[in-house]
Amino acid sequence: MNKQINIKKMATTAKTATLSMAKASSQQKNEALEAIIKNSKETQEAILQANRQDLSLAKANGLSKPLLERLSLEKRLEEILYAIGEVIDLPDPIGELLDERDLPNQLTFTRCRTPIGVLGVIYESRPNVTLDISTLSIKSGNCVLLRGGSEMLHTNQLLVEVIQKSLVAADLPREAVQLIASSERSHVKELLQLHEYVDLIIPRGSAALQQFCREHSTIPVITGGVGICHLFVDETADLERSLQVILNAKTQRPTVCNALDTILVHAGIAPHFLPRVIETLCTKGVTFRLDHKARKLIEDPSCYLAELNDWDTEWLSLVLGIKIVENLQEALQHIQLHSTGHSDGILTETAQNAELFIREIDSAAVYVNASTRFTDGGQFGLGAEVAISTQKLHARGPMGLKELTSYKWIIRGNYQVRT
Amino acid sequence: MNKQINIKKMATTAKTATLSMAKASSQQKNEALEAIIKNSKETQEAILQANRQDLSLAKANGLSKPLLERLSLEKRLEEILYAIGEVIDLPDPIGELLDERDLPNQLTFTRCRTPIGVLGVIYESRPNVTLDISTLSIKSGNCVLLRGGSEMLHTNQLLVEVIQKSLVAADLPREAVQLIASSERSHVKELLQLHEYVDLIIPRGSAALQQFCREHSTIPVITGGVGICHLFVDETADLERSLQVILNAKTQRPTVCNALDTILVHAGIAPHFLPRVIETLCTKGVTFRLDHKARKLIEDPSCYLAELNDWDTEWLSLVLGIKIVENLQEALQHIQLHSTGHSDGILTETAQNAELFIREIDSAAVYVNASTRFTDGGQFGLGAEVAISTQKLHARGPMGLKELTSYKWIIRGNYQVRT
Repeated sequence: MNKQINIKKMATTAKTATLSMAKASSQQKNEALEAIIKNSKETQEAILQANRQDLSLAKANGLSKPLLERLSLEKRLEEILYAIGEVIDLPDPIGELLDERDLPNQLTFTRCRTPIGVLGVIYESRPNVTLDISTLSIKSGNCVLLRGGSEMLHTNQLLVEVIQKSLVAADLPREAVQLIASSERSHVKELLQLHEYVDLIIPRGSAALQQFCREHSTIPVITGGVGICHLFVDETADLERSLQVILNAKTQRPTVCNALDTILVHAGIAPHFLPRVIETLCTKGVTFRLDHKARKLIEDPSCYLAELNDWDTEWLSLVLGIKIVENLQEALQHIQLHSTGHSDGILTETAQNAELFIREIDSAAVYVNASTRFTDGGQFGLGAEVAISTQKLHARGPMGLKELTSYKWIIRGNYQVRT
Repeated sequence: MNKQINIKKMATTAKTATLSMAKASSQQKNEALEAIIKNSKETQEAILQANRQDLSLAKANGLSKPLLERLSLEKRLEEILYAIGEVIDLPDPIGELLDERDLPNQLTFTRCRTPIGVLGVIYESRPNVTLDISTLSIKSGNCVLLRGGSEMLHTNQLLVEVIQKSLVAADLPREAVQLIASSERSHVKELLQLHEYVDLIIPRGSAALQQFCREHSTIPVITGGVGICHLFVDETADLERSLQVILNAKTQRPTVCNALDTILVHAGIAPHFLPRVIETLCTKGVTFRLDHKARKLIEDPSCYLAELNDWDTEWLSLVLGIKIVENLQEALQHIQLHSTGHSDGILTETAQNAELFIREIDSAAVYVNASTRFTDGGQFGLGAEVAISTQKLHARGPMGLKELTSYKWIIRGNYQVRT
C-alpha cells in the first residue's frame, strides 16, 4: 500500500498548483464544489462499498465501537454533502480588502486576503474530515495534502478520486487535493520537514499526535482539538438550569473535545447541589472522580476518589471530575492550572463574577451560562471548520474559511524613494 | 557570565506574570513606558559606558565595522527613546472588539483582542532592538524573554535593569521583561522547547538562526527578516525615475533586509538602460553579478558573471544581481523561484502588467513603482515593529502592536444547551 509514495514530489506538485488555485475565480471554485456533490452522489454506492470494506477490516483489527462509528459513512454521506452546499454559499474570502491607507510617503497601501498555500492535514478515522477539509481548502484557494488514518484508506482513496475529478471538471489542478495513502510514521515525519513547499500543518487527533508534530515539524503547526473543559458553578447560579447545562455538556456527545471534563462547585451550594448532579448524570451512565471534600459529601458506587492526574485528563467518555472550591478565586486557579485553553465556563447570576471570569480565563472560548458543547465553527457562525485551535498564533478556536487565509501588502507608488 | 541561568525558571515566572500583564490598564502600561524614557535618560551615562565596554570588547574580538556600527548606542539613544514616545501614543490594542454576533442559538458571541502571552525573541547586535521589543511587548500586555547577542551583554543588562525598574514603578511585574544573559546555543535550544510556558518565538537574524529555530523549536516560530528582493524593470517603465528607485533600493541602506538584491530588466530596454544603471550605481561603489545576456552587453571591471547560487543570495552589501528577461512572464518565474517572499516590485507604465504582477507575486510586500526600502512598520503606518515576517501564518510583513496579539471568544448565554 505504501508503494512508491513520494511525499516530496506530492508537495512540489501541490506547491506548483498553488499558483492556479490562488488565481481561481469564485465561480470556478464553486463549480468544483458542486461537482464534488454531484460526483459523490453518482459514486455513492462505490464509496459506501469502500467504506464497508474499511469497516470490516477495522473490526477485524479490533477497533473499538466508538471508533467504528466515527469511521462509518452509512447514513452520513447526505449530511456531509449538504455541508458542502453551505460552503458554496459562503462568500469567497480571497481578495478581500482588509486594510487600506494613504501615508505621508504618498504611497497607497492595501492589505488583501490571500490563500496560505499548501496545507498538510494529519487526521484519524472520520472520513467526513476528508470532504470537509478538501472543500474548505478549495474554497479558500489553498492546496492540501491529506494524511488520513490507514483504517479508512479505501474510503479516502475513492473520495479523493472524486474530488480530483471535480477539480479537473472546473479546470483546476487535480494536485490541489492529494492523499498520502500511507500509515507509516516516517512519511508523516518527512512531510513535517518540507517547509520549502508546505506552509501549515494541522494535526487533528490525539495529544500524542499533536506532540509528535510539534516536535518534528519545521513547518508552522496549529495544534488544538484537545479540550480539558471546565464549568464553575457559582453560589448564585440557577441550579436547576445549571444541572441541565452540565448534563448537556457532559453527555450530549461525550467523545468530542468540547465535552465537559471537570465541574468546580462552590462550597456554599455543594451539599444540596452535588447529590442532584450525581443522581441526574448517573441515569446517563456517568461515573465520577471526586476530590476529598466532595467525597466526604457523597457516598455512591459511581463515585471514585480522584487521583492527581485526573484533573489533567481529557475524558472523552462518560466520566466527570468534581471538585469543591471555596470561592471563584480557587476555581480560577484550578482552571488556569489544568485547562488546555479550549472551552471553559462559569454558571452564575453574579455579573461581577462573570466579568472577572471572562477577564482571568485565557481560553479560546470562555462561556457565561452556557454549555461548552457550543464550541464549533457552525455554532460560532463561521461555517464548517478545519480544526479547533487551542494555540494563540494565527487562529484561536474554530477555524473556518477565513482562518485558512493569509494576506499580502500591495504598495502602489509613483517611483517614490526612501529618504 | 552563564552562571546559574535557569531558563525554565525564567519562563515560568514570565508565564505567571502574563496574568498581571493581561489585566494591566492602558494607563499602567503607558506609565511603565514613560518610566523607561525617564530612567533611561537618568542612566544615560552608565548605559553609554556599558555600550562602550561592549564595543571595545567586540572590536578586540575582530567584529566587522558595519556590525560595530549596529552595536553602538552613541548618538542613537535619543532617537530610540523618541520611538518609545510614539508607542505610548498608539492606541492600546488589548480588549479591542474584533467581532460580535448574535446567532440562532440565542448566544451572544464577541471576539476580543488579547495578548499572546510569553514571547521569546532571539536577536543579534542592535541594542535598540532590546528597547523596541520590550516597549511593544509591554504595550501589548505580553511578557518577553530576550536573548540578545553576547556582543552587547553589558548594554543589554543595564537596559533590562532600567526596564524592570520602570515596570515595578508602574506596579507591573518585573518578570514581564527578562534577559537571558547567555551566549550558549544550549540555552537557546532549551528555550525553544518550553512550549508549556512560551507562546511564540521570534528569531531576528541570519537565515542560519531562522533555520536553527525552525528545526529545534516546539513553539510556534515566526521567521522573517531575510529578504532576497527583486525589481522588474518593464519595457514601458519611466527609466529616468526607475534608475533613482534602483539606486535608492540598493544603496540607501544596503545592510538591511528590504535592500534590493536583483534587478530583472526587460530585453527591449536593456541595451540602453543597463549601461546607465552600471554607471550610476558604480559611483556608489556597487559591484554587479550579471547573467550571460547582460554580460554580453556590458564590459566593465565592476561586473562579474553571476554564479548559479548568486540568485539565491541576500547580498546585505553593495552587490547587485542583474538579469535580462524576455518578458514579464520570465520575470515572474524568476521571482517565484528565487524570492524569499519579503519585498518584490515592478516598475512599469503598463497597468495590466502591474496588476498581473500583483496577482502572481506572493510576497509580504508587492510594489508597483516604488523602492523596496519602504517595507517597515513605520512606513506602513503600523508604528514600531518587532520583526518582518516572511511566513504566512499569523502575521505577514512588518509586525507591530496588533501583530503581537491573539484573541479569545466570549460567549454569553442564558443556560443554553446544545441539541
